[in-house]
Amino acid sequence: MEVIDNLAPLREKIAYIKGLGKTVGFVPTMGFLHEGHLSLMKIAKKRTDFSVVSIFVNPMQFAQGEDLGSYPRDFPRDEALCANEGVDLIFYPESSLIYPAGYSTKIVVEGLREPLCGRSRPGHFDGVATVVAKLFNIVQPDLAVFGKKDFQQLAIIRRMAQDLNFPIEIIGAETVRERDGLAMSSRNSYLNPAEREAAPALYRTLLFAKDRIENGNAQDSAALIRVMRDRIESAGPFEIDYIEIVDRETLAPVINPASGKVLIALAAKLGRARLIDNIEAGF
Amino acid sequence: MEVIDNLAPLREKIAYIKGLGKTVGFVPTMGFLHEGHLSLMKIAKKRTDFSVVSIFVNPMQFAQGEDLGSYPRDFPRDEALCANEGVDLIFYPESSLIYPAGYSTKIVVEGLREPLCGRSRPGHFDGVATVVAKLFNIVQPDLAVFGKKDFQQLAIIRRMAQDLNFPIEIIGAETVRERDGLAMSSRNSYLNPAEREAAPALYRTLLFAKDRIENGNAQDSAALIRVMRDRIESAGPFEIDYIEIVDRETLAPVINPASGKVLIALAAKLGRARLIDNIEAGF
Repeated sequence: MEVIDNLAPLREKIAYIKGLGKTVGFVPTMGFLHEGHLSLMKIAKKRTDFSVVSIFVNPMQFAQGEDLGSYPRDFPRDEALCANEGVDLIFYPESSLIYPAGYSTKIVVEGLREPLCGRSRPGHFDGVATVVAKLFNIVQPDLAVFGKKDFQQLAIIRRMAQDLNFPIEIIGAETVRERDGLAMSSRNSYLNPAEREAAPALYRTLLFAKDRIENGNAQDSAALIRVMRDRIESAGPFEIDYIEIVDRETLAPVINPASGKVLIALAAKLGRARLIDNIEAGF
Repeated sequence: MEVIDNLAPLREKIAYIKGLGKTVGFVPTMGFLHEGHLSLMKIAKKRTDFSVVSIFVNPMQFAQGEDLGSYPRDFPRDEALCANEGVDLIFYPESSLIYPAGYSTKIVVEGLREPLCGRSRPGHFDGVATVVAKLFNIVQPDLAVFGKKDFQQLAIIRRMAQDLNFPIEIIGAETVRERDGLAMSSRNSYLNPAEREAAPALYRTLLFAKDRIENGNAQDSAALIRVMRDRIESAGPFEIDYIEIVDRETLAPVINPASGKVLIALAAKLGRARLIDNIEAGF
């Protein structure tokens, strides 16, 4: 496995690999890897000949006052995990390589960036779409894999890749969870033991809501969301950012959750961590 | 020469050409071709193995009330001109292929999109940057050529290509002019005979200002711009949109035009036509 931190050698390597007729799979990450990331690498490795992982904590997707400075980092551990998965190349750039002086361009995916996490994180998804487009142009993969835990991010990247005609297949991979149901996240490292114990209430409540919908016991999103809110708030010191039931493609709110395939998505603060999770429901 | 109006056959053709180890040159246009466009094609042809011209009147770069509907079109003539230049492929898509239902993405080049033409054409350069990024991903050229008549467009595309890491060399080509100095433009076709006769006053005035600057007779941009304005307004029924002296890279106004390499840029309405022109001055 090679670690490359600059553009020219990366482009040279990719050109060489493509010249051999090999396909390239790509998993962009912010590092501090967990089983969720590793599951994405497994997909890239299975589906393509040469797998690339990028590790870059993207400052453009953090707002002032968010956790850019304290975001967990451990490159030696990440490197070992990637090697263990059989990853072929890690791209590990400095911030100044990605955003040099004079940098001025952003990509906006209108309609999808505003709801859900967009409301409390304005500009976040512009930063995500922009860095992913940059990484796509740098790595030039045939396929890229993203986790469904960040469902809105996945929807935005799908839309962006389609709208801007990137010749790249976008794969959404199932969320990987701890044994008690908590969705894996690098930010789970912020939780103290008591918070960590309370955290699975998010997923339990998503399962409860999915069950209500799929058993025909929910015709009103607002009512179901109220019940979910009560359950979460009584399970621990959660500060709920949002709970929403939305269309899976447009992310627009759905009045009657029994009307088709929906997404139940939520975000909540628990101690220092802002946790997100979601579940698909309906038929 | 082949004319292709769809994505799959175009991608297939480009993959085939690249598979032969050939380089691809690209000239994006809105059609109604003139000598300026042909000069860009000559550069693409000289510098690469396979030259692609796109002809697409991009609705996203026209504001409500602008001339999208009346923009001149003549595909059979354009096709003959391209064939005559030895162009290898014309990409001639329908609008619905470029902006299908649900399209949501735009590219914003902050700082460069706001001044000069950006002030009277809000959103224009978002539309330009976006369609060019799309065409870059569709055609995947090694090199793309743009005219310096649209200097701000060129600056924005250079910035966007660099910022988003497109592996494409951007070439700026000298403005091609009529014998009396009027910059070639598809919109010159809007001018009636009297307007057409008055139009070269724009370039004459740019030459006059360049001469003043380079001979050390201008230390104050505002004063020089006032003189230019008087000259243009006394030469015909021009409605001046702007005259500015700016930095060639940042497009920021320059107080003392003798301070280095500058760009003198202007836009004016003459009858139905909005004309733009510019000249580089200084050492």
